[in-house]
Amino acid sequence: MNVEKVEKYLKEAIGKERVKSSIDFRAAYAYDGTPTGYKAIPDLVVFPENEEHVSKILSIANEEKIPIYPRGAGSGLTGGSAPINGGIVVSTEKMNRILEIDEDNLAVLTEPGVVTYDLQKEVEKKGLFYPPDPSSYKYSTIGGNIAENAGGPRCVKYGVTKDYVMQLEVVFADGTIAKVGSKAVKSVAGYNLKDLIVGSEGTLAFITKAYLKLIPKPEAVRTAMAIFPKIEQAAQAVANMFKAKVIPTACELLDKNSIVAVENYAKIGLPSYAEGLLIVEVDGYASIVDELIERAMEVCRKAGAEEIKIAKTEEEREHIWHARRSLSPAIVNLKPKKINEDVVVPRSRIPDLIKGVYEIAKKYDLMVVNFGHAGDGNIHVNFMYEPHEEEKVERAVREVFRLTLNLEGSVSGEHGIGWMKKEFLPWEVGEALEKMKAIKKALDPNNILNPGKIFDLS
Amino acid sequence: MNVEKVEKYLKEAIGKERVKSSIDFRAAYAYDGTPTGYKAIPDLVVFPENEEHVSKILSIANEEKIPIYPRGAGSGLTGGSAPINGGIVVSTEKMNRILEIDEDNLAVLTEPGVVTYDLQKEVEKKGLFYPPDPSSYKYSTIGGNIAENAGGPRCVKYGVTKDYVMQLEVVFADGTIAKVGSKAVKSVAGYNLKDLIVGSEGTLAFITKAYLKLIPKPEAVRTAMAIFPKIEQAAQAVANMFKAKVIPTACELLDKNSIVAVENYAKIGLPSYAEGLLIVEVDGYASIVDELIERAMEVCRKAGAEEIKIAKTEEEREHIWHARRSLSPAIVNLKPKKINEDVVVPRSRIPDLIKGVYEIAKKYDLMVVNFGHAGDGNIHVNFMYEPHEEEKVERAVREVFRLTLNLEGSVSGEHGIGWMKKEFLPWEVGEALEKMKAIKKALDPNNILNPGKIFDLS
Ligand SMILES: Cc1cc2nc3c(=O)[nH]c(=O)nc-3n(C[C@H](O)[C@H](O)[C@H](O)COP(=O)(O)OP(=O)(O)OC[C@H]3O[C@@H](n4cnc5c(N)ncnc54)[C@H](O)[C@@H]3O)c2cc1C
Ligand SMILES: Cc1cc2nc3c(=O)[nH]c(=O)nc-3n(C[C@H](O)[C@H](O)[C@H](O)COP(=O)(O)OP(=O)(O)OC[C@H]3O[C@@H](n4cnc5c(N)ncnc54)[C@H](O)[C@@H]3O)c2cc1C
Repeated sequence: MNVEKVEKYLKEAIGKERVKSSIDFRAAYAYDGTPTGYKAIPDLVVFPENEEHVSKILSIANEEKIPIYPRGAGSGLTGGSAPINGGIVVSTEKMNRILEIDEDNLAVLTEPGVVTYDLQKEVEKKGLFYPPDPSSYKYSTIGGNIAENAGGPRCVKYGVTKDYVMQLEVVFADGTIAKVGSKAVKSVAGYNLKDLIVGSEGTLAFITKAYLKLIPKPEAVRTAMAIFPKIEQAAQAVANMFKAKVIPTACELLDKNSIVAVENYAKIGLPSYAEGLLIVEVDGYASIVDELIERAMEVCRKAGAEEIKIAKTEEEREHIWHARRSLSPAIVNLKPKKINEDVVVPRSRIPDLIKGVYEIAKKYDLMVVNFGHAGDGNIHVNFMYEPHEEEKVERAVREVFRLTLNLEGSVSGEHGIGWMKKEFLPWEVGEALEKMKAIKKALDPNNILNPGKIFDLS
Repeated sequence: MNVEKVEKYLKEAIGKERVKSSIDFRAAYAYDGTPTGYKAIPDLVVFPENEEHVSKILSIANEEKIPIYPRGAGSGLTGGSAPINGGIVVSTEKMNRILEIDEDNLAVLTEPGVVTYDLQKEVEKKGLFYPPDPSSYKYSTIGGNIAENAGGPRCVKYGVTKDYVMQLEVVFADGTIAKVGSKAVKSVAGYNLKDLIVGSEGTLAFITKAYLKLIPKPEAVRTAMAIFPKIEQAAQAVANMFKAKVIPTACELLDKNSIVAVENYAKIGLPSYAEGLLIVEVDGYASIVDELIERAMEVCRKAGAEEIKIAKTEEEREHIWHARRSLSPAIVNLKPKKINEDVVVPRSRIPDLIKGVYEIAKKYDLMVVNFGHAGDGNIHVNFMYEPHEEEKVERAVREVFRLTLNLEGSVSGEHGIGWMKKEFLPWEVGEALEKMKAIKKALDPNNILNPGKIFDLS
């Protein structure tokens, strides 16, 4: 890449104040939230303000065959926005306006750089609700959420980001600006490019606007905690809850090591016999939530819960969620290094997954902490280790993925493949991989959009 | 196509009893539910029984560059399964087994030829529920529903077919058998081929198995009818209902001509002042449905409903739905010919759509009957006409599509593009059309899968 030439073109195309080549900028945009740090430093960082700018940037990159790395907040955990081969980081920081809250159709039109939390707060002012809630919601962007099809605790009941994307304005690799999807709630008009682009990690198109579905804000919410002597009991309770027709808003599981870590860190009085803990939240009409949380807790009791706490006040509710939120900081203290894999299995396989993960940890003599969105079957498996154990951990992680796939699960519930998990994708998708590559080549023949992510083109 | 040679190959590959070349078979499989009748007659009709058979059929067709027409029940309304260029009809009639009802994970694994209604009844025996309910559910197949992303009255609350497809086993044009999607409730592992194939009308892959999400059967249901002096009032009530936090299970609208037709046909006592009628159904926990239907009817009252009937018994409920179900037979009596377009707009635009359609009907002096899934913004616009009015109707239909797109809607809510609506697709999807074609070429380079549907390749 002839950086000077490209810099000149870009400055002409979108204005020089939007094109940065200084080492401060290049270094600051060289990595994302992935613990491994950065691999390469970009040549340029650009800050488009609208789809025309993005179209011009992509046209130039396509002409010159230069890698483009779309970037939101850079909170990704698989290296998705990392500029691994040099090239141009295209940040959505300056595309951060909420354009319209459509109260009549329960929808919002937004630019991609808007922070998830800001969007949620804005629509809540109108009594509306945007459910997807990745734990990173205070800084992650809507564009990044869409590109990773982000999930979160509430997704058990409400579904993931994809379920809220109605229409996107995107720019394809050749600079074409197009709308995909529909503002109508359903449409069967040609191929569903919208759902293909959601979750494609910036490799198929650059998202410049999103029209997102909202729902009325639930009238009431109830939160409870159930403590189990055995992890299998907690896992069983999760599966039974759905059969008892209680679809919880959130259903978070903590295993023994998680409980101990939280207790040591936050001293909230969790009993020492506890090997499994469920946090269950329900929401809906005011007249039904008490009944629902009772039903959910009844399921837990039957599955073997020894203690049940239903929050009576907002403060008590906060207290319960505090346990969950303390987890990330709490486990950081356990060992110098950690690797977090977000595997997901069919709900009924959670007990097998956790049992298998314990066996793998034992085999490699590693500390493991499991917690996560159990209602979705999505468990975050965290190996905690000393630097010299790196190689052992890698082998253990491989076994966790094999186990997950044997249990008919997926290697990524919500963090994506990015650059970090490329090795494991073929294990999961098999023959379909060649078809994915064919689509990539069809839509981005020069391989400029986030090259080297999800898979390598052969 | 050298029919004899291909017939021989096919018989060797999948057994001669599964390959039919007699004129009876060829004639019987020459058309689908589309009123226009057939265009061409296929050369062969084949009845595979598993994915291996399908793979062999497609491999031969791909080698010989012969069109393949996947076919379920042939109830499609846009010519989707019609063999418009000759070639081979591949029927799923013999792939009609429900393979497993997974009660632990609330899911069912099925072959594509299973009739929608049969699947619903089977899972209901276990207290489970498969929501998508196209009106053709007594004969349409799951494979056809998936290929058209079928909807129905219940989709307002529960979503369309796509929302229930978790994993598919498919055969690509080159004979590759692959799984797309995941049995886990969420997954971000590579491109979302699953949602690309759903709704692709048999042009990207042949569906050989589907793993479908189920939900617990709702405990209770309530149904009501609201009668309005003005159609705009009924349309407004639909929009307001969502704001009042009532998400109905179904919300069906009938306009004046629909009401008159039903009344003449079924004599159920609908008042003559009625210009708009809403059928609203809610479901959920037993302890809440009475409150919900009351809330919904309160919205209708406020919007101007003069009469409200809440069904007290299953019989009364049947009576209300009878009005809706009488519609299709009732309007058939009105004129010798009819054309039905299933346009869809954002909910708030329903009043504008109906007003606009009336103006178009007036301009061309045509009779129009509007009804449909108003909760989804999906209105079936039916022009009723004499044979000599054909050309006028065509012009009117074009204007309806223009109107729909001006209102930010879609030319097809659920029936697809097929062969009948190809002209209108570019109006809606614009620049994205070329990307759709690129995907088609990437996945089916010889254009053997349902060629000439959705768009023509240039
Ligand atoms: C503490 C922590 C907790 C987390 N918890 C969760 C969680 O609960 N659930 C979850 O799903 N994730 C979680 N994540 C991961 C991450 O926050 C999500 O993937 C998030 O969606 C990324 O958003 P971002 O704006 O930071 O995107 P980035 O990290 O900047 O980018 C992510 C991907 O999106 C692409 N991209 C960004 N913007 C665009 C655009 N406009 N057009 C096209 N492509 C684009 C990038 O190229 C990249 O591939 C967590 C991360 C951290 C650090
Ligand atoms: C009276 C009536 C009412 C209707 N009401 C509704 C309604 O409310 N909602 C609605 O959405 N539709 C409705 N329809 C349309 C139609 O019934 C649906 O599109 C249905 O999903 C078609 O199913 P089928 O099995 O008949 O498919 P077919 O008509 O045989 O095929 C439809 C399409 O699917 C493809 N296909 C079929 N099987 C496969 C497979 N295994 N793999 C790949 N492609 C395949 C075909 O190639 C074709 O493109 C109605 C039709 C009628 C006649």
